[in-house]
Amino acid sequence: MKAELISIGDELLIGQTVNTNASWLGKECSQRGVRIVQVTTISDDKQLILDAVKQAFERADLVLVTGGLGPTKDDITKHTLCEFFNTSLEMHIPTLQQIEQFFSQRNRPMLDVNIRQAELPKDCEILTNRVGTAAGMWFDYKGKVLISMPGVPYEMKGIMQEEVFPRLDSRYQLKSLFHKTILTQGMGESFLAESIAEWEDEVRDAGLSLAYLPAPGMVKLRLTSFEGKQREAEIDAYFAVLKDRYPSLVFGEGEETLPEVIGKILLQKNQTIGTVESCTGGGLAASFVANAGASAYFSGSLLTYTNTLKQQIGKVSEEKLKEFGAVSSEIAEEMAQNGREILGVDMSVSTTGVLGPDGGTPENPVGTVWIGVATKDRTLSKRFQYGDNRERNSQMAILSALNLARCELLELIFEKK
Amino acid sequence: MKAELISIGDELLIGQTVNTNASWLGKECSQRGVRIVQVTTISDDKQLILDAVKQAFERADLVLVTGGLGPTKDDITKHTLCEFFNTSLEMHIPTLQQIEQFFSQRNRPMLDVNIRQAELPKDCEILTNRVGTAAGMWFDYKGKVLISMPGVPYEMKGIMQEEVFPRLDSRYQLKSLFHKTILTQGMGESFLAESIAEWEDEVRDAGLSLAYLPAPGMVKLRLTSFEGKQREAEIDAYFAVLKDRYPSLVFGEGEETLPEVIGKILLQKNQTIGTVESCTGGGLAASFVANAGASAYFSGSLLTYTNTLKQQIGKVSEEKLKEFGAVSSEIAEEMAQNGREILGVDMSVSTTGVLGPDGGTPENPVGTVWIGVATKDRTLSKRFQYGDNRERNSQMAILSALNLARCELLELIFEKK
Repeated sequence: MKAELISIGDELLIGQTVNTNASWLGKECSQRGVRIVQVTTISDDKQLILDAVKQAFERADLVLVTGGLGPTKDDITKHTLCEFFNTSLEMHIPTLQQIEQFFSQRNRPMLDVNIRQAELPKDCEILTNRVGTAAGMWFDYKGKVLISMPGVPYEMKGIMQEEVFPRLDSRYQLKSLFHKTILTQGMGESFLAESIAEWEDEVRDAGLSLAYLPAPGMVKLRLTSFEGKQREAEIDAYFAVLKDRYPSLVFGEGEETLPEVIGKILLQKNQTIGTVESCTGGGLAASFVANAGASAYFSGSLLTYTNTLKQQIGKVSEEKLKEFGAVSSEIAEEMAQNGREILGVDMSVSTTGVLGPDGGTPENPVGTVWIGVATKDRTLSKRFQYGDNRERNSQMAILSALNLARCELLELIFEKK
Repeated sequence: MKAELISIGDELLIGQTVNTNASWLGKECSQRGVRIVQVTTISDDKQLILDAVKQAFERADLVLVTGGLGPTKDDITKHTLCEFFNTSLEMHIPTLQQIEQFFSQRNRPMLDVNIRQAELPKDCEILTNRVGTAAGMWFDYKGKVLISMPGVPYEMKGIMQEEVFPRLDSRYQLKSLFHKTILTQGMGESFLAESIAEWEDEVRDAGLSLAYLPAPGMVKLRLTSFEGKQREAEIDAYFAVLKDRYPSLVFGEGEETLPEVIGKILLQKNQTIGTVESCTGGGLAASFVANAGASAYFSGSLLTYTNTLKQQIGKVSEEKLKEFGAVSSEIAEEMAQNGREILGVDMSVSTTGVLGPDGGTPENPVGTVWIGVATKDRTLSKRFQYGDNRERNSQMAILSALNLARCELLELIFEKK
């Protein structure tokens, strides 16, 4: 089943509001096998709405419309739809009673504009809005369907979940799309594509669809089946093959994050972690603390941004700092090693680098970062070379450090490219 | 000038990615007098792209296209635009050199797919992408313009800011909107509106438009003149009045951030700062380090997430921890005070709280945060009460701590509501 979404509202076009309705509907619909093929965002303008509805009906079986149902003057969706469907408004008594109840519950007087919200098109099914005053509307039209809903996200979501999805499920035999996503870190999109070309051919030959979704410092791979959840086991098997071939690259699935994955491993091993940071400035630590319950495995950090503090609280030797410089394998390893002792943790991760825009040298150009990891068994360090954007370099360094720590915890050989 | 945006990508339609490009472009364009009248989101499908471009040209003078320029098989925008504009691809040497440099800087070999990213349409102007390998394209077409850019937000933003807006400014006479923004921290939107009601009347009477732009932990106030830059001095004067009346609330202008503002004050005073963090987990330190040149005033931090580390490296007394608990005025102040000594800094800022979702008590419910500030003259602490969203609470605590530090540096009385 093909659907289109028409989002109405100036606030979306001037960037005051992000269109999260579109992403919510996209996710919920595709999980139920309704494929949204286009999203059109327009302002509260009669002709634009009429054109958009006409064109959407040409391409889709289901047209979802959000916005423009409020009580103010600029909300014209209801009148415009009456024109399109050649019908008129009449007072809808159950909706009026519901609006009356809504205001009396809140001890607020009901205004004329609110009463007029109960005037609804004759030729449509009314979809109850339990959390607001703008009802939804279901129009049947030449074997297709248009649904109009308010733009307020929680009102739209309520109507979709309580009124629309149950009706769609009972009236249509939907084809069932099913997605699953696997997460990789350590290779850019192009390299990953080349490395896994064979695997990609296998999944495509099996009739599954593969998408590369690059995000800063990582690439998500999404497999889609057009025959629904029944192919989940098959998708899982393909993911298992990928994990098996590239264990250092594949770190998780779905909505997992690297700090969460590390947290789970640490909890299993009954171990703790801490960080000694220079260039990442606390960002690596903050990525752990972002997770509720992090105190079970994350203890704390030393943030030694200056060379003085590297010596004073990080106990790095002055001689080594002079000999090798702060951005070096030796200092990264000493920071990590000393951190284990000072913080009393099982694993300590260190970062030291030049994030830019200034401070680069021929030996250590902007974007150079050394990451160290120390456990009771060994200490190692790796050099990374990123670009010249400070913020992005920081994100990349944090993710590289996390994946290096994960590989060390799992005794994997760390690959990067 | 009317513009339309065509966003290409399945990830937007199935809700895996929220279309923040649309809101960013909406905001930036409208500030420059370019009105986005429609946003159309479609998948990487040749016919859909051709139809969308054709229809957009019927309605708008400027068509912005994002997405579908990556190196993988599903990225087809470039070829489709060649078909639409009846042109073909050729190797663009400057882009090829830039891609080569991009990979050599990162010590990564260049693949065939990357080389092919330098094959670009003959009949267009190439827009340099300084942070990625997919160049932008500017097509002139029947007196109108189409611009194609990658969908990765920071690449698209870079191309718009460095290549597109300067060209638009020089080639078109855009309507002259002029905006200036002043930044406040410490009061919610409703309270702020009530507090500054009189000032708001004054600016509205002067024919300026005022917008409240709430962001987590702060409220931006934007004044807009419809007669261009000529009213800048007047806007500055209104801002000066606001700063004078509410010095603890107003911390900066435009794109300034609180850590930057504090950095400037510290540099002037030739002083340094450090942090001792518990609940903010390094995020407060990271907010300083995000700024290039932070090492001139920011030294480092202790991140004492567990009570053990509060004692061992933060030198907080076991007795006080037992008597008052970790989330208390006494511990916040002791953390800040000891931090000054241990880190050897002029000012030390501490955080200790319960960010949630668990861990609340009747005395310190979720959202309670104590912030301490120590200077050579005095130590003080303040209690803050936020909501139940962990991520938001962390952001709020960081901003409150920064503004408290700023007020203390400037010897202002700190207000909050």
